[in-house]
Amino acid sequence: MAPSATTDLSVATPKFADEVRLFAQEDDKTVDRFLREFRCLIADLVQQFGGGHPGSAMGMAAIGLSLWRYTMKFSPANPSFFNRDRFVLSNGHTCLFQYAFLHLTGYEQMTMDQLKSYHSARYDSFAPGHPEIEHEGIEVTTGPLGQGVANAVGLAMATKSLAATYNKPGFDLVNNTTYVMIGDACPQEGVFQEAVDLAGHWKLNNLVMIYDNNQITCDGSVDMCSIEDLNARMRANGWNVIDVLDGNYDVEGIIKALQQAKASTEKPTFINVRTTIGIGSKVAGDAKAHGAAFGVDEVRNVKAKFGMNPDEHFVVSDEVYNIFADLKARGQKLEQDWNALVADYAKEYPELHKEFIARVEGRFTQDWRSIIPSKDSFPTTPTPSRKSAGLVCNPLAAKLSNMMVGTADLSPSVNMAWKDKVDFQHPDLRTTAGINGTYQGRYIHWGIREHAMASISNGLAAYQKGTILPVTSSFFMFYIYAAPGVRMGALQHLQQIHIATHDSIGTGEDGPTHQPIALPALYRAMPNILYIRPCDSEETAGAFVAALEATNSPSIISLSRQNLEQFPQHSSRDGVLRGAYVFIEEADADVTLIGVGAEMAFAVKTREVLAKKFGIRARVVSFPCQRLFEAQPAEYKRETLRYRSNAPRVVIEAYAVNGWERYADAGYSMSTFGKSLPGKDAYEFFGFNGEKIAPQVAKLVEDVRRDGIESLRGEFRDLNTPPANH
Amino acid sequence: MAPSATTDLSVATPKFADEVRLFAQEDDKTVDRFLREFRCLIADLVQQFGGGHPGSAMGMAAIGLSLWRYTMKFSPANPSFFNRDRFVLSNGHTCLFQYAFLHLTGYEQMTMDQLKSYHSARYDSFAPGHPEIEHEGIEVTTGPLGQGVANAVGLAMATKSLAATYNKPGFDLVNNTTYVMIGDACPQEGVFQEAVDLAGHWKLNNLVMIYDNNQITCDGSVDMCSIEDLNARMRANGWNVIDVLDGNYDVEGIIKALQQAKASTEKPTFINVRTTIGIGSKVAGDAKAHGAAFGVDEVRNVKAKFGMNPDEHFVVSDEVYNIFADLKARGQKLEQDWNALVADYAKEYPELHKEFIARVEGRFTQDWRSIIPSKDSFPTTPTPSRKSAGLVCNPLAAKLSNMMVGTADLSPSVNMAWKDKVDFQHPDLRTTAGINGTYQGRYIHWGIREHAMASISNGLAAYQKGTILPVTSSFFMFYIYAAPGVRMGALQHLQQIHIATHDSIGTGEDGPTHQPIALPALYRAMPNILYIRPCDSEETAGAFVAALEATNSPSIISLSRQNLEQFPQHSSRDGVLRGAYVFIEEADADVTLIGVGAEMAFAVKTREVLAKKFGIRARVVSFPCQRLFEAQPAEYKRETLRYRSNAPRVVIEAYAVNGWERYADAGYSMSTFGKSLPGKDAYEFFGFNGEKIAPQVAKLVEDVRRDGIESLRGEFRDLNTPPANH
Repeated sequence: MAPSATTDLSVATPKFADEVRLFAQEDDKTVDRFLREFRCLIADLVQQFGGGHPGSAMGMAAIGLSLWRYTMKFSPANPSFFNRDRFVLSNGHTCLFQYAFLHLTGYEQMTMDQLKSYHSARYDSFAPGHPEIEHEGIEVTTGPLGQGVANAVGLAMATKSLAATYNKPGFDLVNNTTYVMIGDACPQEGVFQEAVDLAGHWKLNNLVMIYDNNQITCDGSVDMCSIEDLNARMRANGWNVIDVLDGNYDVEGIIKALQQAKASTEKPTFINVRTTIGIGSKVAGDAKAHGAAFGVDEVRNVKAKFGMNPDEHFVVSDEVYNIFADLKARGQKLEQDWNALVADYAKEYPELHKEFIARVEGRFTQDWRSIIPSKDSFPTTPTPSRKSAGLVCNPLAAKLSNMMVGTADLSPSVNMAWKDKVDFQHPDLRTTAGINGTYQGRYIHWGIREHAMASISNGLAAYQKGTILPVTSSFFMFYIYAAPGVRMGALQHLQQIHIATHDSIGTGEDGPTHQPIALPALYRAMPNILYIRPCDSEETAGAFVAALEATNSPSIISLSRQNLEQFPQHSSRDGVLRGAYVFIEEADADVTLIGVGAEMAFAVKTREVLAKKFGIRARVVSFPCQRLFEAQPAEYKRETLRYRSNAPRVVIEAYAVNGWERYADAGYSMSTFGKSLPGKDAYEFFGFNGEKIAPQVAKLVEDVRRDGIESLRGEFRDLNTPPANH
Repeated sequence: MAPSATTDLSVATPKFADEVRLFAQEDDKTVDRFLREFRCLIADLVQQFGGGHPGSAMGMAAIGLSLWRYTMKFSPANPSFFNRDRFVLSNGHTCLFQYAFLHLTGYEQMTMDQLKSYHSARYDSFAPGHPEIEHEGIEVTTGPLGQGVANAVGLAMATKSLAATYNKPGFDLVNNTTYVMIGDACPQEGVFQEAVDLAGHWKLNNLVMIYDNNQITCDGSVDMCSIEDLNARMRANGWNVIDVLDGNYDVEGIIKALQQAKASTEKPTFINVRTTIGIGSKVAGDAKAHGAAFGVDEVRNVKAKFGMNPDEHFVVSDEVYNIFADLKARGQKLEQDWNALVADYAKEYPELHKEFIARVEGRFTQDWRSIIPSKDSFPTTPTPSRKSAGLVCNPLAAKLSNMMVGTADLSPSVNMAWKDKVDFQHPDLRTTAGINGTYQGRYIHWGIREHAMASISNGLAAYQKGTILPVTSSFFMFYIYAAPGVRMGALQHLQQIHIATHDSIGTGEDGPTHQPIALPALYRAMPNILYIRPCDSEETAGAFVAALEATNSPSIISLSRQNLEQFPQHSSRDGVLRGAYVFIEEADADVTLIGVGAEMAFAVKTREVLAKKFGIRARVVSFPCQRLFEAQPAEYKRETLRYRSNAPRVVIEAYAVNGWERYADAGYSMSTFGKSLPGKDAYEFFGFNGEKIAPQVAKLVEDVRRDGIESLRGEFRDLNTPPANH
């Protein structure tokens, strides 16, 4: 990325060898000593296991010192101090950088022994190959590039939202800053652009991005695949841009830039810091310094070059430890002051205080169970489940301050906007359409940015466990754009609810590009996420109950665009919580039909046709969520699906059947992409019609009568065949 | 998006009502008549079925006229004329815009009757809800926003690549331009940024983007979620920017801008055209004009406003048809001239001509089968399958001019760079690292842009069927970033090969962020794609054969980072082509073990332990590709998996087991995310070890002996349990 015409950033890679400054040449001997020791420590840590990422961590030493020693507020003794500054390492492969600072600043978990466990075979390591949220001092799990930036935008939004809601004159309860570190890769990822555009739009002046600009990625120099002027792009997106030309040594310059950033009143700030990857090594400034150990000899050379003893390893002198010695006490003081402020606030604003504390402690501000509508409140006429979702979610969103609900530009389609909702917007924003909002607003216009929507939501949810419950929404198909972020939410055990409307081929005319076929297989296989397809309003209520109860998991609620028949006499929210349940029982059934979500009516209709035309008795099981069902006792599972009976089980769903083979002997499903037709015609085209399904099921029942149920073992039957002309 | 400081673009939404120009006020009566008729035609087409997207198509009328009548070269009588200009509608929901122009310009398929089938229930419609590649005049299927821009970058790259390879002085065989139309949504999607950065870097001056800037998306005005200066961003990415202030009527201005764009020698061009969505309707300039019919009354009002007869529908006057009347003949002339040029070329450059024609006709330039290495050429010592893939693919890439091989910044890891490979780069590029290339180069540095890599590759593959075979590469996990593009490749039947290395938890220290668990379930469920996991070098060769034979499908070849034992005595490339095959036979087997890809050695080891410690006879089946297996005759499937025997089948794979239930009675698999440990330790941590697997299988065999094989029907057994502390 070439420099902007308006910046004085030097783009040439410094010749490293000339730049190593000897201890004695420095004015600030301590800083110099720190930089030398830190860089050798990183080289040692990577070398001991013969692998890892040394180069950037070494290059970023001065940045780290400026941040942890001179800029960020935090409490090593209590890593979850509520008003701490948040730090996100979006270039997560440089994790040793962060781990080393956690060690130096006194986070108890990160002992030198733990630091040395990097890349080791130790099961109890707190120093994994990328930072992980479950460990002290790590705000979000990073690694998949670009996403950390989006996470940081979410963390900064959380601060703005909480501050606008609870801060009062003299009571800055929440005023922390979020810092995010990036390398050369993050800006190349699309999610980065989506996130920075939003951050600029929302004027998140409490967000600071520090760019470890060493112009090196795995393949070589960045200018091999980008001539972009990144500073200019950031300005175009509404960010301040500050350049630091010598990021290797100019601690003072970096601190000054960080102070300027913190003083910004209108914009997030991008600090472009020029560094040298692998500084001090013979591969300095080269891609070879990125992802491999230097080798024993070269680590010795590095130490010699930095005036350290090549025979000593993992050296951190008392002088260097002393730099950080007061941070623990300072952090405790920060926390005490904050606790005192909150105590005073309790006296002045007792109601707000109560709500604030609930959120600090990760509780909902109201009893959500009492807000969920009862079964008899729902319309009994055909209703799209996306509308049902609005009926359930809108009152929740209106009343629970924890909820922040947004959409990737589909407000008219997803029904997530509640009456009197206020948009999350900078209060000064006045759009051409006259739309505005405040930072207190809890309705988010994400724009057409699904990946950022999910990844920023991870940041919102990670601010403090339970403080914010993000609800995202889009067409289900576009959760394939969001998938990298949704997955990271599941991996991090972050509760959130993804409202995925327009599921299955029933979405209709928009055609195969918009009709999901395979995507459910991803989310049903993904660990720690609930993919729930309710069949009507009552089950939609159940889906929300399941999602709200799942405090350690995200949920996807998969909803129809089209009208769905309502089954108040059969459907059950409690049934949803068990994943699957008997929808229509039949004592001596010949077959169990598994109905799912928007295709439930086909199962019910098939049952009728089977009875009328074939004299076949079918029972119906509703199966909205495989993962919830898996958690049920074996006995319940057996009874529900009649594992031991002679009745085969047939799943009816307009998706790829993959995975249903666990619960069914046969499937009536999709094996091709969809087709652009009105929803009911799309169903018809692909044979989803009780009159067409029933004969196939009848044939199966006949086969079983003739050959025995055991004939079905191990040979799943696909009852539907794609149209010949498709 | 606010205007750049350096542009005179007016940002205020024009008050539409004042802007409707009456027929008589126009100098160019024909153009005026065209604009009025076109807009009413669109309103009628949406109204007849009561749904669709009228607004933007109406707003873009003048743009379309400028493009199809005055700018693009194409041959309506032969939509696949090789050197035609390519047009991509990235805002695919405005498809009526394109369909109407295909009709007007004389594409035979798009009759008025077909045009009227938009959103209808007709199975034979050529006018689906989004443009689809299988229909005349459609270059790529669009709809998922942002991707069309990436497709267009691929189409423009294809031109550059072919031109650099085959054009000679006086023989401009390939010199077409690619035009891509976007709305306000595309620039918000991350993939847009990834693609435009690359287009700027490669100086694709043959790429023109036309921005239908109406400042409206579904949720309302764009400035509700973006304050970005898009012109400035495009400039930062190396594009020319041209503003057109009255895109509703200024046909001359648009044509001029397109001419300027075409004259660009160094940069792709972005034409920012200000239009009014739903122009002529009472919802003009409003989100309500985006995605719904106007209603019968309002369509009448629109017609009245445009001076048309409200009682007449689907009016296209002879005067308007006449505008386009000469295009068919012009197109035929273009084609004749080109054919003559190619014929002359054959005389001057017979060898090159032969190769060129092979590519025009979609054939490989050499017999690829003879290039694939033989089994005995592979090392017999443990080898990572990513290395095996290099051994197979590198000679193919070196010799087949059709192949363009790229990587998302993982050259050192994916082994796709062959000796003497030349990078695809603008010939003037000189990077700081001294790396360069030419447009003739066929090795692509995509940067860290997985989504664009896949989506641009779709464009490369779509240039003309078989002309270019794109090969992408990254870590398998990051094919979750690429998934939206990979899916669109499958949907469009575009052959390409995705090299996905570092699969499964064997990838090791990088940890759970980099270890795929659920992703295979997506690709195994996705229609029309081969997900192939070879177990050793021989199977890797088979995977490439399968991928090269699959001329209507993309393939993902899923490969290990770590060393894999080689099984030359068992593995078979022909076996891969059948999806699964007997790896180690055992006549009276108690159990069939299904080994997959990098985990094959565990199956083989489990077999040994079962024999030695439990006296249990196990046979082993290798199962690299479910979809290829599904295509086999029932008898082959039964024999391979012994469906009818009393031996249970156990799949061993370090992924979520979802979908394997079709082929197995039990699975030894992953049900959680992974863990940061060295590869072999990660396997060990999750119980992947023959010594641990064998007792679980033995217990299953014992259960079957006791309870009979039929006891397994319908109740899949998960033999592996996640570690207690995970």
